[in-house]
Amino acid sequence: MIILLKKNADESQVESLKMLLRAQNIEPHVSKGSMQTLIGCVGDVAHIDPSLIEAIDVVESVQRIQEPYKAANRKFHPEDTCVDCGGVEIGAGQFGVIAGPCSVESEEQIIGVARAVKEAGAKMLRGGAFKPRTSPYAFQGLGKEGLRMLSQAKKETGLPIVTELMDFADIELFNDVDVIQIGARNMQNFNLLKEVGSYTKKPILLKRGMSATIQEFLMSAEYIMASGNANVILCERGIRTFETQLRNSLDLGVVPLLRRLSHLPIVIDPSHATGYASMVEPVSVAATAIGADALIVEVHNNPQKALCDGIQSLTPEAFASMMPKVFAIRDLVESWTKK
Amino acid sequence: MIILLKKNADESQVESLKMLLRAQNIEPHVSKGSMQTLIGCVGDVAHIDPSLIEAIDVVESVQRIQEPYKAANRKFHPEDTCVDCGGVEIGAGQFGVIAGPCSVESEEQIIGVARAVKEAGAKMLRGGAFKPRTSPYAFQGLGKEGLRMLSQAKKETGLPIVTELMDFADIELFNDVDVIQIGARNMQNFNLLKEVGSYTKKPILLKRGMSATIQEFLMSAEYIMASGNANVILCERGIRTFETQLRNSLDLGVVPLLRRLSHLPIVIDPSHATGYASMVEPVSVAATAIGADALIVEVHNNPQKALCDGIQSLTPEAFASMMPKVFAIRDLVESWTKK
Amino acid sequence: MIILLKKNADESQVESLKMLLRAQNIEPHVSKGSMQTLIGCVGDVAHIDPSLIEAIDVVESVQRIQEPYKAANRKFHPEDTCVDCGGVEIGAGQFGVIAGPCSVESEEQIIGVARAVKEAGAKMLRGGAFKPRTSPYAFQGLGKEGLRMLSQAKKETGLPIVTELMDFADIELFNDVDVIQIGARNMQNFNLLKEVGSYTKKPILLKRGMSATIQEFLMSAEYIMASGNANVILCERGIRTFETQLRNSLDLGVVPLLRRLSHLPIVIDPSHATGYASMVEPVSVAATAIGADALIVEVHNNPQKALCDGIQSLTPEAFASMMPKVFAIRDLVESWTKK
Amino acid sequence: MIILLKKNADESQVESLKMLLRAQNIEPHVSKGSMQTLIGCVGDVAHIDPSLIEAIDVVESVQRIQEPYKAANRKFHPEDTCVDCGGVEIGAGQFGVIAGPCSVESEEQIIGVARAVKEAGAKMLRGGAFKPRTSPYAFQGLGKEGLRMLSQAKKETGLPIVTELMDFADIELFNDVDVIQIGARNMQNFNLLKEVGSYTKKPILLKRGMSATIQEFLMSAEYIMASGNANVILCERGIRTFETQLRNSLDLGVVPLLRRLSHLPIVIDPSHATGYASMVEPVSVAATAIGADALIVEVHNNPQKALCDGIQSLTPEAFASMMPKVFAIRDLVESWTKK
Repeated sequence: MIILLKKNADESQVESLKMLLRAQNIEPHVSKGSMQTLIGCVGDVAHIDPSLIEAIDVVESVQRIQEPYKAANRKFHPEDTCVDCGGVEIGAGQFGVIAGPCSVESEEQIIGVARAVKEAGAKMLRGGAFKPRTSPYAFQGLGKEGLRMLSQAKKETGLPIVTELMDFADIELFNDVDVIQIGARNMQNFNLLKEVGSYTKKPILLKRGMSATIQEFLMSAEYIMASGNANVILCERGIRTFETQLRNSLDLGVVPLLRRLSHLPIVIDPSHATGYASMVEPVSVAATAIGADALIVEVHNNPQKALCDGIQSLTPEAFASMMPKVFAIRDLVESWTKK
Repeated sequence: MIILLKKNADESQVESLKMLLRAQNIEPHVSKGSMQTLIGCVGDVAHIDPSLIEAIDVVESVQRIQEPYKAANRKFHPEDTCVDCGGVEIGAGQFGVIAGPCSVESEEQIIGVARAVKEAGAKMLRGGAFKPRTSPYAFQGLGKEGLRMLSQAKKETGLPIVTELMDFADIELFNDVDVIQIGARNMQNFNLLKEVGSYTKKPILLKRGMSATIQEFLMSAEYIMASGNANVILCERGIRTFETQLRNSLDLGVVPLLRRLSHLPIVIDPSHATGYASMVEPVSVAATAIGADALIVEVHNNPQKALCDGIQSLTPEAFASMMPKVFAIRDLVESWTKK
Repeated sequence: MIILLKKNADESQVESLKMLLRAQNIEPHVSKGSMQTLIGCVGDVAHIDPSLIEAIDVVESVQRIQEPYKAANRKFHPEDTCVDCGGVEIGAGQFGVIAGPCSVESEEQIIGVARAVKEAGAKMLRGGAFKPRTSPYAFQGLGKEGLRMLSQAKKETGLPIVTELMDFADIELFNDVDVIQIGARNMQNFNLLKEVGSYTKKPILLKRGMSATIQEFLMSAEYIMASGNANVILCERGIRTFETQLRNSLDLGVVPLLRRLSHLPIVIDPSHATGYASMVEPVSVAATAIGADALIVEVHNNPQKALCDGIQSLTPEAFASMMPKVFAIRDLVESWTKK
Repeated sequence: MIILLKKNADESQVESLKMLLRAQNIEPHVSKGSMQTLIGCVGDVAHIDPSLIEAIDVVESVQRIQEPYKAANRKFHPEDTCVDCGGVEIGAGQFGVIAGPCSVESEEQIIGVARAVKEAGAKMLRGGAFKPRTSPYAFQGLGKEGLRMLSQAKKETGLPIVTELMDFADIELFNDVDVIQIGARNMQNFNLLKEVGSYTKKPILLKRGMSATIQEFLMSAEYIMASGNANVILCERGIRTFETQLRNSLDLGVVPLLRRLSHLPIVIDPSHATGYASMVEPVSVAATAIGADALIVEVHNNPQKALCDGIQSLTPEAFASMMPKVFAIRDLVESWTKK
């Protein structure tokens, strides 16, 4: 942390500030110039709120040097993390594809899709039981009944299941769920993050908020980890930009950025990122090429009758046709990293 | 809703689509051109999900004509709504200023600030007991104890209180609270909106999410209203833009826009909108000039020692100096509307 | 400028970096900590490109402390600048309203509008002769002929004229123009800025780019000033945000921000900022309340037949009805600053 | 184009509007509902300005159905376009990599880099002679002398050259240039687009503006094409988002979107898109995987001493190490499209 002082800062004020810093175990290093004076702060500044320092009279501005996240920070955990998702490993070189419908609609539907995606090479099943919808009048998911159907599909196929939790009050219904998803709109629902982090050690698939910065995203992961659950998977699902012809804009450059900043596995959602089934395949191969640890893809047996997001869902046939391409790219990527 | 068909749409497919629409009480009006055919949909389309229609083979695109919100929509409620906030009216010509510290820190602090802002003309007291913070390591508020202190300040001054609810599990602690605030980060925490809307008829001050569109904002108000509570106050608190020298960018143009689209009262938060105490006064007078129904302003007895957001808090003296300017502008605005 | 070194920086590398800095008249102040070492740079760093320093092996990151603009910077020019616009002063306490049609369409039209807006209290006439249009198929303005009509309107009414220059090749046609406008899309057309800045000392009304940061905006002003023309007027005309129901989002908070950072006059364009005639009045009074030095308002004698931007143009009657409100607000604002 | 009428629209007003439309060769199809009436417009609406229609009293809103670009539109040119760049073909299945330094700095430098990138498989040489810089105090390029050095490098290696034109006044210096680049900041410098489009039929590499929508991008291509030059190459170079840890955010999803909307070749700039050399390789392979027709990559013989953008430049060695991966991905992509 670096503190830039105002030009008129008098000596006694600067001394008070230095004492205040030392009281918090920060060692101040003053660098005095003809124009401006600055104080370099050495020590553990993660617990200091820069805006408190900025509110002090002699201070002009404060700049952080170190990231405010620790548990999620690669600097403190240089090795890649591999997360065990009900027997399927993701991260640290382990790659997998998660697939399934946006919403669970019936036992027949979810079992049918589960069988089809497993056949095509998917390692986990996704499906929404509780659905966050912008409109109160839209279909909100089958809820508890949907979770029961997911369990049934898991029993039939052996695929671990990923599904979204919107309200901590529902957590006991999630016993048979292998990976708990926190949606983009709840990325900064801090109570939910703390509650879920302290209640369970099950993997949490955390989706990046539509306009969240990478630091905010990692701070939300930090909320879960600081509460006791280190099994966090980061999911990029497209961000909001000025382009309105796509549902979102896929920010693929965050894969190498997150890789540098954090040790957590990274999964890409090509379905929400574009909003169009025809773009899922090109985006999936690109995400694989850039080094994502996993993909999470919407597949529906009858997209035209899907109760939500049908327009972005692949048919099982389209998914089966895409998977060999994803695997071919992944083989290339692995051949490069092994060298 | 208007449906644009693909060029090669054959007659039988178009007939199926028309039947599908009629089955949902929508009357289709086909308009056939040399290049393209479109279907105008007449009827109550609020319950139809456009993406389901878009997923149909013969459809190229779908465009909504009517807003998907009803309870919040001025078209269906032409008169301005006035919300009773523990005896203080806001909206429909009733103007008021809400003031108080970002966080409740002690009984002495909150009572002191309450007295000072009341003296200067504030009609309600704000103060955070539960604080949404980006970092898990930052001060999270005094919680239940903070609510008790707010009640004490209310008893001493008679000012109704506004404070934020982050978790529905805490709702029973809010019995003495007059206006429940839902924060920007929870604007799309749909479960919280539904729970709070069905549990209470107390006014809800709903803050706009940092990157939310106005339609999303009104849809979140709709969630509360559709659950049974029509007493919603809309709060603009600045949006995220590319400018990083201010905390947020104040989107004042939304006041006349929201006025046209909705009948709900509109409050402006000049403190979060800029992040700097020195900008609160100019922004407050501008917000009053453009016709806001209320302001919600951070005031702290000792901003430099505030446990959060000190840098954007006014001192009681600065607040007292600002208020006559706000009232002078408001008098002008009222003199224009009365004519 | 502060340079943060990598952890493994060895002594000899650090010494080389210090020599490199001294060679550019920068005095390095090293602050060594247990975790990280940083170098505070004292001296005139405005001519140093931070990315060159960042490219050096031992450097982890570089942070600027001082703004890279000088001529536009209030720190070096504490007094407000007043710009003489063909006899009308703007800035440093002098307020004025500029009005006129989006495009000059005929001599009759421009003279008619000029007379009407002068009658209502406008001090300058605006009108486009060269029009930047997104589509090559849209009306591009009357060009040279339009400039001639503007001159005629100036002769008839005595109002100085403001009009946009898109191509430096046209500069000689602008002899009778009093204020040259550079449009938002050309804010970073650096050659145009340099050419116009070195050719003339006439006031330049520089519009902020749709997504420009305030620093970029001031750097573009700096281009003009560094080329020899200090008479720059800054114009905020709304920025692009995710909200699509308005043409742009008015970023009014930049008025106090620009006031703090720069000494140049600030003008607000309420017409482009909203895109709707019905919102021009509320936005204009808010802009006046927040302390803008001028407004630039679109007024058209027959908005429904305007060849461009009719939807956001006021009629002369609506303009005449708005002006007393603007002046009433301005009187209040002046009464506060005089105290 | 669809026109939605206001509720109170009377018959005679609607008749006038229909006559107005017919006068412009548009056939109006009225669809009357219980709540609202709309008019579907059939005919060539590309020349109609929707805001003019919106300004008419009885009209509530207007929505375009068809894209306002024609020459760039795939609907009217279903086949992919292949552009001949001084003997190197790009587009319609022809892939190539363009490489070279941000700025030309010396004859030795540019010839050295040209030889190295040719050796590694690049097909064209890039290098800036005129540099758009945010600051007037930053290095602005070698200008005419830089162009001479590029020619020399072309003579030595046979590589066609790509370089940026900032000012049409310089066009005669560009005789030996094979592809003229228009930079992101000039994407809406409409005069430059028109001038260059009517002066030459050489390929124009048009960079997308930092916050431009895809429609605006294609409209700028349309400006060039409508002026007489159909040889436009679209270049995505990253967009501005809220994430500040990268120079820009790479919007890779636009590749399949542009492919659907337009027939023009698409090139990706991985260097500006991220701003960090270490991210150029992963982004390049992803861009190739998603189907880009070309990459344009910054390569510098001594990035640490580069006069601009050194931090994002690859060394010739890093470029040589990346190219086999790009080609391996490209081979895979070609094998899929051939099937």
